[in-house]
Amino acid sequence: MPKIDLDALTPRTGSIYPAPFDAEMAGRSSLRVGDAGGLTQFGANIVILAPGAKSSLRHWHEEQDEFVMVTQGTCTLVDDHGETPMSVGDCAAFKAGDPNGHHFINHTDEEARFLVIGTRTESETGWYSDVDLRISADTSGFTFTRKDGTPLKGDET
Amino acid sequence: MPKIDLDALTPRTGSIYPAPFDAEMAGRSSLRVGDAGGLTQFGANIVILAPGAKSSLRHWHEEQDEFVMVTQGTCTLVDDHGETPMSVGDCAAFKAGDPNGHHFINHTDEEARFLVIGTRTESETGWYSDVDLRISADTSGFTFTRKDGTPLKGDET
Repeated sequence: MPKIDLDALTPRTGSIYPAPFDAEMAGRSSLRVGDAGGLTQFGANIVILAPGAKSSLRHWHEEQDEFVMVTQGTCTLVDDHGETPMSVGDCAAFKAGDPNGHHFINHTDEEARFLVIGTRTESETGWYSDVDLRISADTSGFTFTRKDGTPLKGDET
Repeated sequence: MPKIDLDALTPRTGSIYPAPFDAEMAGRSSLRVGDAGGLTQFGANIVILAPGAKSSLRHWHEEQDEFVMVTQGTCTLVDDHGETPMSVGDCAAFKAGDPNGHHFINHTDEEARFLVIGTRTESETGWYSDVDLRISADTSGFTFTRKDGTPLKGDET
């Protein structure tokens, strides 16, 4: 059945970020709707932001296109240009390789949500705009390092 | 600016289908939001269905994952299982290679819309469930034929 039973999905909480960055993801959860439908070529997730929560560390992707549509409340896009409030139905696109780091923050007192689509590629490098952190991924998994490739030491903020 | 100016987009009308199938697409238009944002790895389109309109001929893709979220009104999913009304926020996934042909029809008296994401691949074959038609595409363009690869004669319905 192609229609996805959203009520059957359990929101995923937590973060893959190493400490201390993981603590910044409090109040953020997501529904993996694309995975629930058996899709593999791109991720399709509904991100749920409690008041004050952020979607991720501000980042950009070398190889993966990303697309967002706000589906509930107001999500504020933060990128190199500043802050842009986005309402239900508003869309944003982040082309692979564009080094304009971005994330979304819920500055309101109500829960907000957006749908995010991201291509899945065999390899990927992601760069975090505001901290000394990058992620390198391939089919075997992912690794976080400093931007110069050296190991983390916990003082990257 | 990653936020897309939806008001600046002109809905695309018409159809790539050969006659007489093109006439079935009356009342269907779309906003190419992913293209507007410079994305190339997947298409992201808002499909607008006037009352009575359908999204496409019922079809499935050999190579391309597809994802839909209803964003306005009620869109009825039609597939091998029958008809499934879908409301705002409802999602559906169509895995590449699953021969469950699908499309959406607006059975209501109000305009309906959905967001559709589809992977872009270098080659693709699409099959139309209810008529003797297939589409073969590669980087040079696309061709419609009968399902056995022979030329169309206009009597494929």
